[in-house]
Amino acid sequence: MKNLIYLTGGARSGKSSFALQCADTYDRKAFLATAEAFDEEMQRRILKHKEERGDGYYTIEEPLHIDRAISAMPGDIDVVIVDCLTVWAGNLMHAFDSDEVIMSYLERFMTVLKEPPCNVILVSNEVGMGIVPDNAMARKFRDITGIINQKTAAAATQAWLLCSGIPMRLK
Amino acid sequence: MKNLIYLTGGARSGKSSFALQCADTYDRKAFLATAEAFDEEMQRRILKHKEERGDGYYTIEEPLHIDRAISAMPGDIDVVIVDCLTVWAGNLMHAFDSDEVIMSYLERFMTVLKEPPCNVILVSNEVGMGIVPDNAMARKFRDITGIINQKTAAAATQAWLLCSGIPMRLK
Amino acid sequence: MKNLIYLTGGARSGKSSFALQCADTYDRKAFLATAEAFDEEMQRRILKHKEERGDGYYTIEEPLHIDRAISAMPGDIDVVIVDCLTVWAGNLMHAFDSDEVIMSYLERFMTVLKEPPCNVILVSNEVGMGIVPDNAMARKFRDITGIINQKTAAAATQAWLLCSGIPMRLK
Repeated sequence: MKNLIYLTGGARSGKSSFALQCADTYDRKAFLATAEAFDEEMQRRILKHKEERGDGYYTIEEPLHIDRAISAMPGDIDVVIVDCLTVWAGNLMHAFDSDEVIMSYLERFMTVLKEPPCNVILVSNEVGMGIVPDNAMARKFRDITGIINQKTAAAATQAWLLCSGIPMRLK
Repeated sequence: MKNLIYLTGGARSGKSSFALQCADTYDRKAFLATAEAFDEEMQRRILKHKEERGDGYYTIEEPLHIDRAISAMPGDIDVVIVDCLTVWAGNLMHAFDSDEVIMSYLERFMTVLKEPPCNVILVSNEVGMGIVPDNAMARKFRDITGIINQKTAAAATQAWLLCSGIPMRLK
Repeated sequence: MKNLIYLTGGARSGKSSFALQCADTYDRKAFLATAEAFDEEMQRRILKHKEERGDGYYTIEEPLHIDRAISAMPGDIDVVIVDCLTVWAGNLMHAFDSDEVIMSYLERFMTVLKEPPCNVILVSNEVGMGIVPDNAMARKFRDITGIINQKTAAAATQAWLLCSGIPMRLK
């Protein structure tokens, strides 16, 4: 059985670094980036993460169809880091108005996670521990992210919360 | 001695589901809802929670006087879920300008929690782990919610933090 | 070797109270406040914290050069509470535009923490578990705070997350 490691935490809590650390126990590694570089700030953040990763990663960029991207992973890959589910949630909301369509993406992803072709490390974010946002879109984003987090964490073989760079085992 | 179970976590972290799960160990159950359906979004959220609960709950709606609502609980009730303290805090702020009045409500609630007529499950929220809000009302809301959380968690026989649907024992 | 205790948590999560509790195991105590009283609300908050501390604290106010303030601590001090790193981060951002300058302050602080003249209790905040802020300054603030938290928590001999007033051991 493959490992499914779920990592969550706030912004700059050390999630991506811990994901790389978890992946280091494996040989052939892939990185599935869900972020797209829309502006300069995002380009800088993506580049910074890429530098932290160094070589040795087969990189795929996929904003929406992460189910397919994992299914189509080359057969010699031992582990893939999916970084991150929160950006994926934002991409889905940007692409589709319909909750049903968004949830169908999540369902297909969950199906792939049941029998993934390699070990999977999922990086997500805690976004629901601040003040209730004023605007309805942000509240919807919290709802969708929360559902994604609950479903994927429930399916995971390991789950961790990162806090100030320190991993706490959730399960 | 009655159990006083305190649950907290971010939005969509699985608090209400875990509250139902905790209540399932008891026979005759009540649900004390503090939310009022001001608009369509809230009506949807309330209805959704009601459907998740299913039958088998005696439901009370009380935005402010939750101390009285618990005191007046029918004698055959084994457990009441109070969902949630954060909405109650918002209701108190909406109803009263005076901090003293708000704190007097909290004091009366704490008195009832010392010797409740049945087991109590308190649902609250983490709202203070984001950026400091721009407006003074939101900062005051964080303060009041924080005080309520500290006092009720201190009085609790069990406390849990929900994170991505997974309960972590606080005490 | 001196103790370096790192405390984090949301607003009103009981960090400052727990810091006082940690300090109570020491004899001669100092308090290094990073906040400046710019307005009435801040004055009230600072005064409230001061009253909670009571007497028995040698108090220093230093918004920027906390490295020097710790180095220059009187020789008979056993422990200093630094409250808090998040306000320090805000002060640095307010004083300097350059990331390099801000990071040089952090580096000097980290150097002092390697061999502090007394035991140190660091109070910080979780600010990255809400919705991604709209404005770039707030995102930068989350980044800087996150880096400070990761570095200081990594150097700490003990680290705690406060949640609803209850301390959870991080390491």
